Amino acid sequence: MMGEAFNLAEHMARRTALVDEVLDKLLPREDEPPETLHKAMRYVVFSGGKRLRPTLVLDACDAVGGDVMKALPAACAIELIHTYSLVHDDLPCIDNDDVRRGMPTCHKVFGEAIALLCGDALLTLAFEVLSKEQTKVGVAPDVVVETISVVAEAAGHLGMVGGQVMDVEAQGMLMHDIHLSEEQISKIHRHKTGALITAAVDVGALIGGASEEQRKALRAYAHELGFAFQITDDLLDAECGHVKNREPNMAMVLGIERSKQLAAEAIERAIGHLNCFNERALPLRAIAEFVLHRER
Amino acid sequence: MMGEAFNLAEHMARRTALVDEVLDKLLPREDEPPETLHKAMRYVVFSGGKRLRPTLVLDACDAVGGDVMKALPAACAIELIHTYSLVHDDLPCIDNDDVRRGMPTCHKVFGEAIALLCGDALLTLAFEVLSKEQTKVGVAPDVVVETISVVAEAAGHLGMVGGQVMDVEAQGMLMHDIHLSEEQISKIHRHKTGALITAAVDVGALIGGASEEQRKALRAYAHELGFAFQITDDLLDAECGHVKNREPNMAMVLGIERSKQLAAEAIERAIGHLNCFNERALPLRAIAEFVLHRER
Repeated sequence: MMGEAFNLAEHMARRTALVDEVLDKLLPREDEPPETLHKAMRYVVFSGGKRLRPTLVLDACDAVGGDVMKALPAACAIELIHTYSLVHDDLPCIDNDDVRRGMPTCHKVFGEAIALLCGDALLTLAFEVLSKEQTKVGVAPDVVVETISVVAEAAGHLGMVGGQVMDVEAQGMLMHDIHLSEEQISKIHRHKTGALITAAVDVGALIGGASEEQRKALRAYAHELGFAFQITDDLLDAECGHVKNREPNMAMVLGIERSKQLAAEAIERAIGHLNCFNERALPLRAIAEFVLHRER
Repeated sequence: MMGEAFNLAEHMARRTALVDEVLDKLLPREDEPPETLHKAMRYVVFSGGKRLRPTLVLDACDAVGGDVMKALPAACAIELIHTYSLVHDDLPCIDNDDVRRGMPTCHKVFGEAIALLCGDALLTLAFEVLSKEQTKVGVAPDVVVETISVVAEAAGHLGMVGGQVMDVEAQGMLMHDIHLSEEQISKIHRHKTGALITAAVDVGALIGGASEEQRKALRAYAHELGFAFQITDDLLDAECGHVKNREPNMAMVLGIERSKQLAAEAIERAIGHLNCFNERALPLRAIAEFVLHRER
């Protein structure tokens, strides 16, 4: 297989180290007021995330021959947005989760008010980083503007936040024993998870100077990747018995076997969209295979 | 007085009509999914706000001889951010307010989850508008980037959200009968309210093509205006007996008379900063006088 000569684990560890170093510089210091807010922001950002989205930004930039250093601010901004979404999702009024990645969630440690405001601050910081830091590393103003527009659209009412609303409403339906179709669950996932993954790849391509054709191919790749990612996420939840009965889960609706088949087909299509790229797209191929076979 | 020949009420009504017309186009339609989210967004944006911040954006642009039409997207974006902050502040985990401007608050109508996500969606939409719509009306890309950076900084962890955190912490102190100094309350207000008012004026000046000197004068104007605004807000609360005992209130600490004096002095300084502008700064002068004498 194409990924064999390439050590993805090492690659992702290097990407994570790089992203974490920049995030550390971008986040406010804990001893700077308001200290509680800044502690909360650092607590949730440095809580063991896999940095999949920022890695995708950097690898998409690399795949089209771009300068990865120029894509670092956008990579960090997208991770800030992903993190804020987790903080708000965990709040009592939405998923009411006490634990994430083995650690107490933000509102369990800092209280609900600070967790809410921590999410707000991370989302806002993402756009501060996109506007200020990209300019500092020499991304052209018109490209900066387009990255902001791509990210805001993906994160907003027709993207991630919209998907979260659909999820809340689906939970209400499941609570009343109303059946959800494959199509309905897939739509939730496409918005809630897929939109930001697609934006990550698209923004990386954009900063890397991709042609319109390259951007289109990479967006198609990301679309399939995001779809497969959510099925495998649901599969892992289902196999560990982690599915709450109010949670829309693709694997529960489709069954384990058909879920695995759909994920494998999506990843095959994802990799197919990379055919027109050279060996610099190797990490994107390896990530696609990783998403299919990961064990969380 | 300078404001006499100028009808501020008519001026503000015209500005509000203009801003509302554009907001109506920028906000998603209620019959477009996710419908509940879109209904909530429209409910809170069209709930009788005075549109002070967008008016300041437009009037600052006008004061430096700029094209007001080019400042409309930024004016709307800042109102979206102001609105999101009210929605999140009203939530049970912060101020737990059931009524705002005589109407049930967002979470009372749509539930907490949708109110939280509605705030997130409005904040994100603000940056989508700043990046996409400014480009459409012909604001240069480097100016677009700078407006986004000014707005994000003012709305974020060292600005509005930071002030909200200070407010939450101050409420905790007041609950334990710990006295707050004039300095501490003023710091909360400067962040929570002042930062976005200053950003409104600054962004208008920026889009209008202000010189560095003009921007500096207008920022100084806005700084004093924001300070006076919050004192008079606290005065109105105190005079109506609206102050909850856990709310930091300047008028309660300073007393009514000294509060009035401080507000009047700030407005005098604010108007002083407009001396270097011609008659196009008339609305900004009138707004300053209005803030001092308003009855809510």
